[in-house]
Amino acid sequence: MSEQAYRDGLEVKRRLFGAGKEHPLPPGHLADDLLRLSDELVYGRVYTRPGLDLKTRSMLTVAALTVLGRDDYLRRHLQGALHVGVTPEEIKEILMQMAFYGGMPVALKALRIAQEEIAAWEASPGAAGAGA
Amino acid sequence: MSEQAYRDGLEVKRRLFGAGKEHPLPPGHLADDLLRLSDELVYGRVYTRPGLDLKTRSMLTVAALTVLGRDDYLRRHLQGALHVGVTPEEIKEILMQMAFYGGMPVALKALRIAQEEIAAWEASPGAAGAGA
Amino acid sequence: MSEQAYRDGLEVKRRLFGAGKEHPLPPGHLADDLLRLSDELVYGRVYTRPGLDLKTRSMLTVAALTVLGRDDYLRRHLQGALHVGVTPEEIKEILMQMAFYGGMPVALKALRIAQEEIAAWEASPGAAGAGA
Amino acid sequence: MSEQAYRDGLEVKRRLFGAGKEHPLPPGHLADDLLRLSDELVYGRVYTRPGLDLKTRSMLTVAALTVLGRDDYLRRHLQGALHVGVTPEEIKEILMQMAFYGGMPVALKALRIAQEEIAAWEASPGAAGAGA
Amino acid sequence: MSEQAYRDGLEVKRRLFGAGKEHPLPPGHLADDLLRLSDELVYGRVYTRPGLDLKTRSMLTVAALTVLGRDDYLRRHLQGALHVGVTPEEIKEILMQMAFYGGMPVALKALRIAQEEIAAWEASPGAAGAGA
Amino acid sequence: MSEQAYRDGLEVKRRLFGAGKEHPLPPGHLADDLLRLSDELVYGRVYTRPGLDLKTRSMLTVAALTVLGRDDYLRRHLQGALHVGVTPEEIKEILMQMAFYGGMPVALKALRIAQEEIAAWEASPGAAGAGA
Repeated sequence: MSEQAYRDGLEVKRRLFGAGKEHPLPPGHLADDLLRLSDELVYGRVYTRPGLDLKTRSMLTVAALTVLGRDDYLRRHLQGALHVGVTPEEIKEILMQMAFYGGMPVALKALRIAQEEIAAWEASPGAAGAGA
Repeated sequence: MSEQAYRDGLEVKRRLFGAGKEHPLPPGHLADDLLRLSDELVYGRVYTRPGLDLKTRSMLTVAALTVLGRDDYLRRHLQGALHVGVTPEEIKEILMQMAFYGGMPVALKALRIAQEEIAAWEASPGAAGAGA
Repeated sequence: MSEQAYRDGLEVKRRLFGAGKEHPLPPGHLADDLLRLSDELVYGRVYTRPGLDLKTRSMLTVAALTVLGRDDYLRRHLQGALHVGVTPEEIKEILMQMAFYGGMPVALKALRIAQEEIAAWEASPGAAGAGA
Repeated sequence: MSEQAYRDGLEVKRRLFGAGKEHPLPPGHLADDLLRLSDELVYGRVYTRPGLDLKTRSMLTVAALTVLGRDDYLRRHLQGALHVGVTPEEIKEILMQMAFYGGMPVALKALRIAQEEIAAWEASPGAAGAGA
Repeated sequence: MSEQAYRDGLEVKRRLFGAGKEHPLPPGHLADDLLRLSDELVYGRVYTRPGLDLKTRSMLTVAALTVLGRDDYLRRHLQGALHVGVTPEEIKEILMQMAFYGGMPVALKALRIAQEEIAAWEASPGAAGAGA
Repeated sequence: MSEQAYRDGLEVKRRLFGAGKEHPLPPGHLADDLLRLSDELVYGRVYTRPGLDLKTRSMLTVAALTVLGRDDYLRRHLQGALHVGVTPEEIKEILMQMAFYGGMPVALKALRIAQEEIAAWEASPGAAGAGA
């Protein structure tokens, strides 16, 4: 286990989801070990690689989760996207484009979820400057 | 039918796939009508929207096709990605990241296809400057 | 943008989903542009093609949405199917058959949704003659 | 095991794929038991149910296999569709429509396979009257 | 229709889901015929085959439903797995492993469902000895 | 990066695929970094966890790859399954059972691949004792 990669991963998750929101589930959950592995691996050793910036990685993840129809996970990564500066307009463009690769149903479902998350984001205190 | 959108779509396809390579199939094919619709709609009316540039759209499509495991279509869009300036390093990063959303098998398969397309691209006369 | 195709599409949606139920979402939604495109393209330029009648197209869409497991969209198209005269018995046959191509789980889920929609349909005032 | 359902299933397969072409694999194959089960169950007890005719069932199966991207199986069922009287024009309409539910890539791939199977069908001696 | 296979199937379902819980839906449901077929075929003629024991079959089904993202069905088969003696630790291992084949989102979703079902199982009177 | 986990992963791959066959691709491939990560993470830190033995893990992976329709990856893991002692009969049972969760097409395709791999395995010098 690499402690450094784990800490790097938590830092990426903080940037994506906000401080105090790194963990999607309470401790002691059956998913703990997988999340620990994911923090270190996915966020700590893949998202930190220099070839792509975090905003681009966030957009790619939103695209993938849309066509796969993974709604819960998509919701969280839409929150992340807004947090790292992907604009509502850009989110709309990503989701519209996905209609032609994954089908209309997954794109329309994703646009419904995005509508809710954008509304929540715009109503939140930190929204104005967070993406800046 | 909108002639303008159709012409705009062909122009986008020219930028993505190269002049003379807009059509993946010979004329008279059963797919003609769908391709005609796709040229006008997907390339002419969605890819031309101002919210995202063509390079970003190309990267998103590569991500989506990877997790969906649509190999033939992915191969063509990897060619497109290289053509609009997505670097081999960026392609590698996109595909690695997709492993965690669509699974290792689709990412590994996409990396095999990308390896072939990058080799072909680097051996082609126009490669050096095409993405510049 | 083709106004004629858009109007043709709305007419198809009226036949499928009922007058006043053409739009699944309130105006001003993030999905507006995609729905506009879909109205014109999918309903206006594909569903209106002469090769297949609307009832057959409706049945095919129900089959596809079942094996893809797109439940929300399936529910709406089951309403559409009942509206254009697909009988409850035919719906049951379509969904049973799909079990062998998409797996038991998607077929069983679709049969649960269909059970609800058929009950609602049979309880609605217009049911008796609507499919006639 | 129901011998009657098995014989009924073989009869359905004969109508779909042609006499002598009921079995996609040589005897002694690892798949024998599953095919035996499928002959009895899918073809003998589902396809024979009275609620839908064989041509409609064939079209629904083609739609499902298209959006699922099951190419080998789709090829065989496209042969079956032509054999029970689904016209090339109807096949084209089914596949075009599927683009909006399963995405452009699966529809385009299916149209390529259909193009090949229609050509083979039109070149075969029995084509003219077989669907009649 | 084979009465013996049907009765064998109900016996398998009793072992998996508990006496009185063989049927996931009330009688008179649109799904009745498919469930009848499934009881006879899947549970009566496949799950009873000698090559694999019921616990192993249950684990394989959990793995498949996880990567397919069929949540409702997965929940029932997680109940079944606990009932035939798959331990919570083994369930956790199966689901973690699936992350690399079906992606993190399906594994994390499955772990959330498993957490709920394991809690319900541990709180139920028969839990202590049922898997023994 | 954890060297120990990486070495543990290679040891698992040696047991699964055979000495000298740990790597599915030549060095210098675009997939190198992902494979390195997978060796350490999937094989080194997940497959080595004590909750399930290697034979069971291999069977679960075969089940998952079957329903996902990941044919290339499935072929390699069928080789792995035979290598760690999953019998041809057990493979057949796994694949038949998957027909009801992922659909007949993926099960039949997997049985075709398995037939080839079992034949190759039975013709290989080490087959007789390798699973023992």
